Amino acid sequence: MKSLVLEEKMKLSLRDFPIEKEEVLGPHDVRIKLHTVGICGSDVHYYTHGGIGVFQVKAPMILGHEASGIVIEKGSAVTGLEPGDRVCMEPGIPDPLSRATRLGLYNVDPAVRFWATPPVHGVLRPTVVHPAAFTFKIPDNVSFAEAAMVEPLAVGVHAATKAQVKPGDIALVIGAGPIGLVTALSALAAGCARVFVSDVDDTKLELAASLGAVTPINVARQDLVQEIHKATDGWGVEIVFECSGSPKAAEGVFDPLCPAGRVVFIGSQTHDIHYSVGKAMVREARVEHVFRYAHVFPRCVAMLASGAIDVRPLITRKFAFDDSVEAFEIAASAPKGEVKMQIELPQ
Amino acid sequence: MKSLVLEEKMKLSLRDFPIEKEEVLGPHDVRIKLHTVGICGSDVHYYTHGGIGVFQVKAPMILGHEASGIVIEKGSAVTGLEPGDRVCMEPGIPDPLSRATRLGLYNVDPAVRFWATPPVHGVLRPTVVHPAAFTFKIPDNVSFAEAAMVEPLAVGVHAATKAQVKPGDIALVIGAGPIGLVTALSALAAGCARVFVSDVDDTKLELAASLGAVTPINVARQDLVQEIHKATDGWGVEIVFECSGSPKAAEGVFDPLCPAGRVVFIGSQTHDIHYSVGKAMVREARVEHVFRYAHVFPRCVAMLASGAIDVRPLITRKFAFDDSVEAFEIAASAPKGEVKMQIELPQ
Amino acid sequence: MKSLVLEEKMKLSLRDFPIEKEEVLGPHDVRIKLHTVGICGSDVHYYTHGGIGVFQVKAPMILGHEASGIVIEKGSAVTGLEPGDRVCMEPGIPDPLSRATRLGLYNVDPAVRFWATPPVHGVLRPTVVHPAAFTFKIPDNVSFAEAAMVEPLAVGVHAATKAQVKPGDIALVIGAGPIGLVTALSALAAGCARVFVSDVDDTKLELAASLGAVTPINVARQDLVQEIHKATDGWGVEIVFECSGSPKAAEGVFDPLCPAGRVVFIGSQTHDIHYSVGKAMVREARVEHVFRYAHVFPRCVAMLASGAIDVRPLITRKFAFDDSVEAFEIAASAPKGEVKMQIELPQ
Amino acid sequence: MKSLVLEEKMKLSLRDFPIEKEEVLGPHDVRIKLHTVGICGSDVHYYTHGGIGVFQVKAPMILGHEASGIVIEKGSAVTGLEPGDRVCMEPGIPDPLSRATRLGLYNVDPAVRFWATPPVHGVLRPTVVHPAAFTFKIPDNVSFAEAAMVEPLAVGVHAATKAQVKPGDIALVIGAGPIGLVTALSALAAGCARVFVSDVDDTKLELAASLGAVTPINVARQDLVQEIHKATDGWGVEIVFECSGSPKAAEGVFDPLCPAGRVVFIGSQTHDIHYSVGKAMVREARVEHVFRYAHVFPRCVAMLASGAIDVRPLITRKFAFDDSVEAFEIAASAPKGEVKMQIELPQ
Repeated sequence: MKSLVLEEKMKLSLRDFPIEKEEVLGPHDVRIKLHTVGICGSDVHYYTHGGIGVFQVKAPMILGHEASGIVIEKGSAVTGLEPGDRVCMEPGIPDPLSRATRLGLYNVDPAVRFWATPPVHGVLRPTVVHPAAFTFKIPDNVSFAEAAMVEPLAVGVHAATKAQVKPGDIALVIGAGPIGLVTALSALAAGCARVFVSDVDDTKLELAASLGAVTPINVARQDLVQEIHKATDGWGVEIVFECSGSPKAAEGVFDPLCPAGRVVFIGSQTHDIHYSVGKAMVREARVEHVFRYAHVFPRCVAMLASGAIDVRPLITRKFAFDDSVEAFEIAASAPKGEVKMQIELPQ
Repeated sequence: MKSLVLEEKMKLSLRDFPIEKEEVLGPHDVRIKLHTVGICGSDVHYYTHGGIGVFQVKAPMILGHEASGIVIEKGSAVTGLEPGDRVCMEPGIPDPLSRATRLGLYNVDPAVRFWATPPVHGVLRPTVVHPAAFTFKIPDNVSFAEAAMVEPLAVGVHAATKAQVKPGDIALVIGAGPIGLVTALSALAAGCARVFVSDVDDTKLELAASLGAVTPINVARQDLVQEIHKATDGWGVEIVFECSGSPKAAEGVFDPLCPAGRVVFIGSQTHDIHYSVGKAMVREARVEHVFRYAHVFPRCVAMLASGAIDVRPLITRKFAFDDSVEAFEIAASAPKGEVKMQIELPQ
Repeated sequence: MKSLVLEEKMKLSLRDFPIEKEEVLGPHDVRIKLHTVGICGSDVHYYTHGGIGVFQVKAPMILGHEASGIVIEKGSAVTGLEPGDRVCMEPGIPDPLSRATRLGLYNVDPAVRFWATPPVHGVLRPTVVHPAAFTFKIPDNVSFAEAAMVEPLAVGVHAATKAQVKPGDIALVIGAGPIGLVTALSALAAGCARVFVSDVDDTKLELAASLGAVTPINVARQDLVQEIHKATDGWGVEIVFECSGSPKAAEGVFDPLCPAGRVVFIGSQTHDIHYSVGKAMVREARVEHVFRYAHVFPRCVAMLASGAIDVRPLITRKFAFDDSVEAFEIAASAPKGEVKMQIELPQ
Repeated sequence: MKSLVLEEKMKLSLRDFPIEKEEVLGPHDVRIKLHTVGICGSDVHYYTHGGIGVFQVKAPMILGHEASGIVIEKGSAVTGLEPGDRVCMEPGIPDPLSRATRLGLYNVDPAVRFWATPPVHGVLRPTVVHPAAFTFKIPDNVSFAEAAMVEPLAVGVHAATKAQVKPGDIALVIGAGPIGLVTALSALAAGCARVFVSDVDDTKLELAASLGAVTPINVARQDLVQEIHKATDGWGVEIVFECSGSPKAAEGVFDPLCPAGRVVFIGSQTHDIHYSVGKAMVREARVEHVFRYAHVFPRCVAMLASGAIDVRPLITRKFAFDDSVEAFEIAASAPKGEVKMQIELPQ
């Protein structure tokens, strides 16, 4: 009954932490035996820094929120899910009665409880009780590893949805980390004819370039705006997805953008950025911000099942659950060439 | 200097028809030597019926409007195109000063002059003068045959754009003719996780099924709504594209549709259809109608160039220009297994 | 403890019908003392016909669903409402866990339970228990009579929202009945510069013309399309709201419509209509269907409170509850000059 | 034949400047005798600073771009306008063949030539030749003074259109200068139930409060966010229009905004602003930028004609053309209580 517990900053234990015994199965819940859990940058950040912004780890907390598993028990009112079903789970649970949730905007409900965000425990543990409404059945041709990728993929798909990609758009994704790569995959699946991906790391850019109609730009030696203008007859790209978190990159989002183009900020920035209203104005840019995702898990599952998106090239390493402390140590070292590392729980 | 002339209903000649000598190259025009011209159902219909609706052939008219070629001369004010450029052309020329055109809606400008629509000549002839603004350069990796497919593809891409496909949508395309197939390709490229294609012809459905995440439904022996409901847990599809022109199919568009789903009618119907306001209402369906396309040619070229869409499986037969009367006779016989037949002009 | 009970077709009683005693106040509910209830066409139709489509009155049913009142008790988990608050209520209660509801589309949830729709009782009775989430506080400057108008107004506001009115649009509302009039008010409030209202009844058209920038068209003696074209330089209206339920009017919705215009069908039609795909196609019309409303009650309350919409001219007659059988008899006689008749319950 | 000429920074002359003699009437043009011209902040800024950003006055330039007048001559191809027609004019003329213009986005065409923006002359002069496509007939019930207000009003209407106001939205307009006031009028006309207007000047706020359902907030003594939260039960406003140009105000745009709210930046900022991606992210804010306007002049004329918008309270002072140098001196002194000052040309 071991769990991976972040005791405090820089201290992880694999130990008994029987919170699941406290978990009562409600009528609309299912109990899930965990199978695969991916390591997210936020998990690593909690490990190395003990917190993210206002969310500080003040008591031991189980990590992990990118998860797949098997239903082992269902509540009395649950339909559509049965014990034995292979599933992936949406890690945020909103207040169903909040104004935002009722409008269909549950991800911006301030009351959301999100796995592995203090004080809510994550799922690097044997089982979890979860609302059936946020638990999604996966078909046979989608592996547990792919299913555990639905969570990060959902960020990219939500961003592409918000960008209102039109078929034949040209996009730029700034940053070739895991979120940049799922965003590039999502932008292509959503209709982009071509996606430029910029970064300073050739290894990451090579992987990006292997994902489809992707043109890598290494901004350490190439001029981003010049490359974009050359490729678009000076028009610019229809969409810029900022996935780097770099303040300098964020400042430059309007330069490669075409008239009436859209910018999507994915994830936050540590500090206020410098923002050019003038550059945005002369283009009548539309700027969108995405916070996690809403309503896209079943869409991601459908796209993985049909082959519309293939996330397997992003899964670069797997660990047994017993090696999960080591896995986090490796993850914290920013290992060259790794995109998504996953942990498999004992079955 | 031969052209393919529809003299009158059921009478085609390959003969000198020197209209191009009358064509003056304006400052914003280019002169294009034609290379490949596809045969469209409307061309065949003019041949077999002498007209379509209000458009009746009252004088000899050159056929053909799905075309690619090579720029051989440019007007004094043209930039961005040079003699020698390989191009495809948008066959409709709107009034640039009309209210619709200025709003960006040039396809619904009533003053549009469209190739091979009486009294405007088509392009099964050696050369044509055309506005540079409606002439699109194609890159080296797109063949003339593919470029001549941009015109029908544009219909599908425009429909998918109007449908506002969101990543992971499930769609139904009714009809597996040329327009149904380009619509299926466009819907997948635009983000659909899966597309159902319905028809009564197994040969067409087999081709459809080979195009990607397509599930064929033969409505001669399968219940369309039942199949859709089975595959979507009773929810229905997010989008129905009606491409069959069948009044019976048109009447049933709401049955397989999910709440808040969209229906896109592509092309017209000979008579008024029976339309269930009640079925549309309980779903709050949105119904879109598309008329040709606007602003999508460069998008189609970009998607062919990047591999986002592959139209080559739809090009099933090619004819030399000298055999073009025969080509139309074959086309008029509704040949099994043919999707798009094209004519290559002498170079 | 009397209620207005539809015993069967054409038989109404004002009698004790103590269903409210069965109503248990849940933690998220409030108990409301009814004040004013408007008579809707559907109430009258149940009275005169014993049913509407699939909804047939098989057992005695209390009528009434356009209601305002006062909170007299609240559930343990309710916040934001207190006993003594003046309120209006949304009469449809969806399944909060359905797929449609979670997407924010609760009005198209097939499981909705709607007041005075068999077998669900209406509110022409002393009190009702209702979810707090569908109960909306009204400010002091909105009367109970106006608050009971929020329900029909919500239909018009929802339609105007779906139409995506842009400031300066010109609209046509077909039909000057209660729904046509609230739609005209909503279209004006939503940004229309001018609204044409068509009907055959001069009394109704006079009222319409008094509501603001409304131009009445009596189609008994004026040519609708000609009038619209004259007023719009031949361009047509940006939006047509069909509120008449007349099959003939429904057939003509595209004739007065401009390129890229929108048509909104409000309410249903008894039979399939004749629908011209060709006319819709050459305009690239967008057709929307609305089913009741979603998320607009608080918006309506805000617009009544601020004066953005004034529904008072539509309230033409009030009855005491003791006279409610007579009120329905009058309503069933299609009285000239009446728009909205309301019943006030004893306080 | 006098014109108001900005000779250089701080030096205005009323003198003969016969540029109109050079103006050739093309087939699609009309010649207009000017009647009323409003003084815009940009006119004043050119006067006091000799330039705005990259636009520097290097040669004598006629000022004025908010104009109405009378057609006195028409080109051979003009339809829809006749000598004697009363008109207002859109001051920016785009390249009709540019990519942006063809997409319907002519305001973001970099080639736009805009009156009174160096080196293009303005219209404080007897006559001007202008494209008929950008000249709009006004009905008898709209005065020349109101017609000359269409230009600034168009900015507000374009902003409200971009904001996609839904009926019943609550908005905040930051800044009660001329642009803030036309934006408040436009937001109300576009469907807002209520508009909060913030400023530090009580005189301006009083005028704002007189325009309709406007709640003034004096941020010199009131806490903006607290007032908004109090009035919206803590939810926030659906839309923030930033019209102040103040960097401090721009930094705070997300604080009063509700989940999924929209921010519209109207006009530019002298320097980059500090922008909180984090605050925008947790709300999934959408940020729009507007640059002048497109396609809204006829909409504004229609709304003035119908009474949907009344700009007359904003016209606070009129000058004879002979007093126009004095008018600019007064305008440059930032006179208390003035909103829009206009100059009438001799007729």
